[in-house]
Amino acid sequence: MLKDNEVINNLFGYDGLKVIQRTDMFHFSLDSTLISNFVSINQKVKKIVDLGAGNAPIPLMLSLRTKAAITGVEIQEESVSLARRNIELNDLHKQITIVQGDLKGINKRIGHHQFDLVTCNPPFFKVKEDSNINKNDYLTIARHEVKATLDDVIKETMLLLKNSGTFAMVHRPDRLVEILEIMTKYQIHPKRLRFVYPRPGKDANTILIEGKKSNPGGLKILPPLYIYKYDKGTEYTDEVSDMFMRRANSES
Amino acid sequence: MLKDNEVINNLFGYDGLKVIQRTDMFHFSLDSTLISNFVSINQKVKKIVDLGAGNAPIPLMLSLRTKAAITGVEIQEESVSLARRNIELNDLHKQITIVQGDLKGINKRIGHHQFDLVTCNPPFFKVKEDSNINKNDYLTIARHEVKATLDDVIKETMLLLKNSGTFAMVHRPDRLVEILEIMTKYQIHPKRLRFVYPRPGKDANTILIEGKKSNPGGLKILPPLYIYKYDKGTEYTDEVSDMFMRRANSES
Repeated sequence: MLKDNEVINNLFGYDGLKVIQRTDMFHFSLDSTLISNFVSINQKVKKIVDLGAGNAPIPLMLSLRTKAAITGVEIQEESVSLARRNIELNDLHKQITIVQGDLKGINKRIGHHQFDLVTCNPPFFKVKEDSNINKNDYLTIARHEVKATLDDVIKETMLLLKNSGTFAMVHRPDRLVEILEIMTKYQIHPKRLRFVYPRPGKDANTILIEGKKSNPGGLKILPPLYIYKYDKGTEYTDEVSDMFMRRANSES
Repeated sequence: MLKDNEVINNLFGYDGLKVIQRTDMFHFSLDSTLISNFVSINQKVKKIVDLGAGNAPIPLMLSLRTKAAITGVEIQEESVSLARRNIELNDLHKQITIVQGDLKGINKRIGHHQFDLVTCNPPFFKVKEDSNINKNDYLTIARHEVKATLDDVIKETMLLLKNSGTFAMVHRPDRLVEILEIMTKYQIHPKRLRFVYPRPGKDANTILIEGKKSNPGGLKILPPLYIYKYDKGTEYTDEVSDMFMRRANSES
């Protein structure tokens, strides 16, 4: 099951989930953990898509909160391979399916207006005309908008979601204006927004946003989330510690 | 100097500033205090406008932070009268001028593209077609967009500000999407955003936003501001207590 450079770890503190990771690729990140915990899920949610699923951290973590069928869409072959083996490793192949392909137009393959929830941890950085990034590099594709822009992600979300369906995404504060603008453009109206601060006294470095394909208005700004408890040091807040301690089958 | 129903108070905790207030009108609010403390002011700021100045709480509080010339624009006669007497009472007539009139088009009277800073504590509520509010009522005009909408305020701000000038406003979270959209439309790009929470564990109920008439991008989400220190009770946080204790001539 393991290739060169691959190791099996516990999923970022999640007791009960194991993942294969490569030292030279993206590791399961805090961002995936945050969005998996932030998103609203209730018993009515039956079909979920995760766009740009990578090695499938969000589908794996969501499986602890819901029995819904989860489809992960991922364009990069190396990630698809890892994601599928991670799903096997955790015996979640009945709940999670990985589809290899471009998220742009994926609704034609997996279903138009059929999903209750779309999640996404997208690439955060714009690609500038004059930047000399390697557009074929694995990490570049995961971090930069090489294969899909924010507009692509949200447009496709609009095509995937049922009416009243939910969209949840993690992103960076300096793109907040654009995020709200594009969500509104595709009639996915922002309803819950939470800012993540590395520690007290610092500016936010992450945003968690949820919208609904429904009427505009009613945006709530949730209490702030701090990662570290104090101005200095690496002691996690109780809330973040609790996320890392989440156990399998503790549906919430 | 005092009319019926008027009393002289200390300006909401501000040692050294006194104000005349009417029991049946708007009192100096926490919102005015928050925005007066939030806004960026440096030595280069020479000309300031406060749109919808009311009884002039923002001009009065700003006078503690800057020697810049401050113009308050106010449409309601009762407020203009109170504002002018408040300015006299504090001997600030050399620094603060109140202009009575509609803020829409006021740049033609007070100066086009001449101001370094525009502040505003606007009416928060939209006027619905079918609402049966009294559009001549003093409080209704202060709270509802009867005389000017958010679009009117920000459009006029664009006409008043110099290039690189600053706009700062206090508003409500449920209108964040619209606020960012309108600011962007008039090229006043959001740069600093701070959410105000009544107390720990609660959603934000106020936003403080600052933009610049300059290039887009670079939005920062500042640390949250809490009004009360604990889940229960009315003990102010140190930060809010400090605002209320601000003394005259402690320029900052």
